[in-house]
Amino acid sequence: MRITVLAGGIGGARFVRGLRRAEPDAKITVIGNTGDDLWLHGLRVCPDLDTLMYTLGGGVHDEQGWGRSDETFSVAAELQAYEVEGTWFSLGDRDIATHLIRSQMLRAGYPLSDVTAALCRRWQPGVTLLPMSDDRVETHVVLADDAGRRAVHFQEWWVRLRAEVPAAEFAFVGIEDAAPAPGVLNAVAQADAIVLAPSNPVVSLGPILAVPGLRAALTDANAAVVGVSPIIGGRAVRGMAEACLTAIGVEVSAAGVGSIWADLLSGWLVAPQDAETQVPSVTVRAVPLLMSDQDAAANLAAAAVALSQELA
Amino acid sequence: MRITVLAGGIGGARFVRGLRRAEPDAKITVIGNTGDDLWLHGLRVCPDLDTLMYTLGGGVHDEQGWGRSDETFSVAAELQAYEVEGTWFSLGDRDIATHLIRSQMLRAGYPLSDVTAALCRRWQPGVTLLPMSDDRVETHVVLADDAGRRAVHFQEWWVRLRAEVPAAEFAFVGIEDAAPAPGVLNAVAQADAIVLAPSNPVVSLGPILAVPGLRAALTDANAAVVGVSPIIGGRAVRGMAEACLTAIGVEVSAAGVGSIWADLLSGWLVAPQDAETQVPSVTVRAVPLLMSDQDAAANLAAAAVALSQELA
Repeated sequence: MRITVLAGGIGGARFVRGLRRAEPDAKITVIGNTGDDLWLHGLRVCPDLDTLMYTLGGGVHDEQGWGRSDETFSVAAELQAYEVEGTWFSLGDRDIATHLIRSQMLRAGYPLSDVTAALCRRWQPGVTLLPMSDDRVETHVVLADDAGRRAVHFQEWWVRLRAEVPAAEFAFVGIEDAAPAPGVLNAVAQADAIVLAPSNPVVSLGPILAVPGLRAALTDANAAVVGVSPIIGGRAVRGMAEACLTAIGVEVSAAGVGSIWADLLSGWLVAPQDAETQVPSVTVRAVPLLMSDQDAAANLAAAAVALSQELA
Repeated sequence: MRITVLAGGIGGARFVRGLRRAEPDAKITVIGNTGDDLWLHGLRVCPDLDTLMYTLGGGVHDEQGWGRSDETFSVAAELQAYEVEGTWFSLGDRDIATHLIRSQMLRAGYPLSDVTAALCRRWQPGVTLLPMSDDRVETHVVLADDAGRRAVHFQEWWVRLRAEVPAAEFAFVGIEDAAPAPGVLNAVAQADAIVLAPSNPVVSLGPILAVPGLRAALTDANAAVVGVSPIIGGRAVRGMAEACLTAIGVEVSAAGVGSIWADLLSGWLVAPQDAETQVPSVTVRAVPLLMSDQDAAANLAAAAVALSQELA
C-alpha cells in the first residue's frame, strides 16, 4: 500500500511516526512544509523537515517535539556574545551540523529534495521525505498592530514575537513560482491513501496546498483525501493555530478547519467531543485525536488510512 | 611608537601578547598569515587570524595555544555521524560561531579585512589585526611519497597527515594575484619598528612575505626589520617547522632561517646557545627566546623592538 501524507512539524511528525508503526509494510511518502524555512547566520534552516527527520530517525528531543535530543547551545551563546542579528532563534549545536551540510549542498547547487535525501541517509526515517518544493517559499506575516503595516518572517512572528502581535495576513512569498518537488505529484497520483496530518492548517498545510498544482493533484487523485483535525473542542491541540485561524477569518473549530478544505476532503477525523461536526459533502468520523503516546498516534493513523480506503 | 609585526599562529600570537605588555603605549599593527585558511563545511576558517584574535582577546585555550577556552565539540561529533568529508579538521562549537559570522559577511561581499575588524570589535585585541591580503591565498603541499605527484591543502598535510608524508614543495595558490590588504603597506612604511615574529618561516611568514609588494615595502621601510628565530639549537620551538624547512632545502638552524631573509633583516634574535650564529650583513643578538610565560614573551618582544630601534 502506498500512503502519502502532507505534514508540518511536530504534529505531522508524531502522526507519521504512528503511521509507520500502524502500517509497517506500507510505502509512505511525506510531503513536508518548507514555508517555515529561513536563512539564519548563513545557514538554511528547515524546521518542519528536520522535525520530521529527527522524529522518524530517533534523534528528536522527545518532550519538546522538535530539535535534537541531548542538545547543547555553545554556538548560540557565542553568537549572542558577538551581538549579531537573529539570535532570537536559538540554534542548537547538534542541529547546526544538519544546517551546515544542507547549506553547503544547496550552495553547491543541489536541490533541497536531494539534500533532504542525503540527510535522510543518516536518519533512515523509514519513509520517503520530500520537501513540498525545491523552490524557496517563505511564509511572511503581515502584522496588525499600531506600528504601521509591516511584515516579518513567520519564524520571527512565531518565535521572537510569540505570536502576540496579531497577524493580519499570511503571505507565502515565492509560492507563485514554486513547483512541486520531484516525486510530489506522483506520490499524490499513485497513492492508495492520502492524509492531511494534524498540523497547523494555515502555516503548515497552507503553504503545501498553495504550491501550484498540488490542489489539482489532490482533487484528481484516485485515493480519497482524509484530514485529521488539529482542533479539539475549539482549541488547537498544540502550537498557536488559533492565532493563525483568527487571522484568516476561520472559526477555531473542527468544522471551521474542515470547511477550508471541503473541496479536497473525502473524510475528516474529529475528536469524540466534536462528533457533531458537519462539513458539507465530507464524511466526518470521530476518533481519539490526542497522540499522547506512539500507540495512540498509531491508532489515529490507522483510522485515517482506514477511512481513506473506505471512501476510495 | 608604531610597531608592525608579521605573525603566524601560536608563536606569533604569544609574541604579540608579550609585545602589548612590553609596549603598552605603542600603536601595534599585526599582519597575519592567511595561507592556512580553508573552506570547511561551508565555513571560512582562518586559523592564524583566529589564534591571534583569541589570544589577544582573552578567549584562547591557553595550554593548547589555539582554539577557544572551554570549548565543546557537539557540531563536530554530528558531522562525523553524517560521515561527511573534512571531519579530520575538528571545529569546536564556540569557534564555529566565529566562522559563521565570517562566512556570512564574506558571502555578503565584505572583504576579509573588514570581517576581521568586525570580529575584533568583540575581542578588543588591543592591536590592529590585518590579514596579509583580502584575496584568497591557500598554501598547498606537494607530497613526496610513492603515491605519485599530488598536492593537498596545508591543513590536510599538517592535521590529517600530521606532516608524516614528506613535503616536496609548498605552493601559495593564488599568491600572484593577491594584493596586500588595506593598511598593510602603510603599516610597514610608517612603522618605527618592524618585527618578524617567531612563527613557522615557511608556511606562516612565507606566505605573508610572498604577497606581491610586501618584500619591497619591507626593504624600503624606514624602520629596521628584526626577526626572531623560531629555531633553538637546531630544533623548532614548536610545531613542525623542521619538516617544512627540510622540504625547501634550508638548514634547520637559526643561521639557516636567518639566511632566507638576509636581504630583509637588519637584526636577528637567536637563543643564547645559538650565539655564534652568523648571517651575512645581519646583526645577530642572543636573548632568551622561550616564551614560557607572558613576562618572558614581553622581554623577548622588548628586545626585538630595542634592536630594531638601535639599527634604524
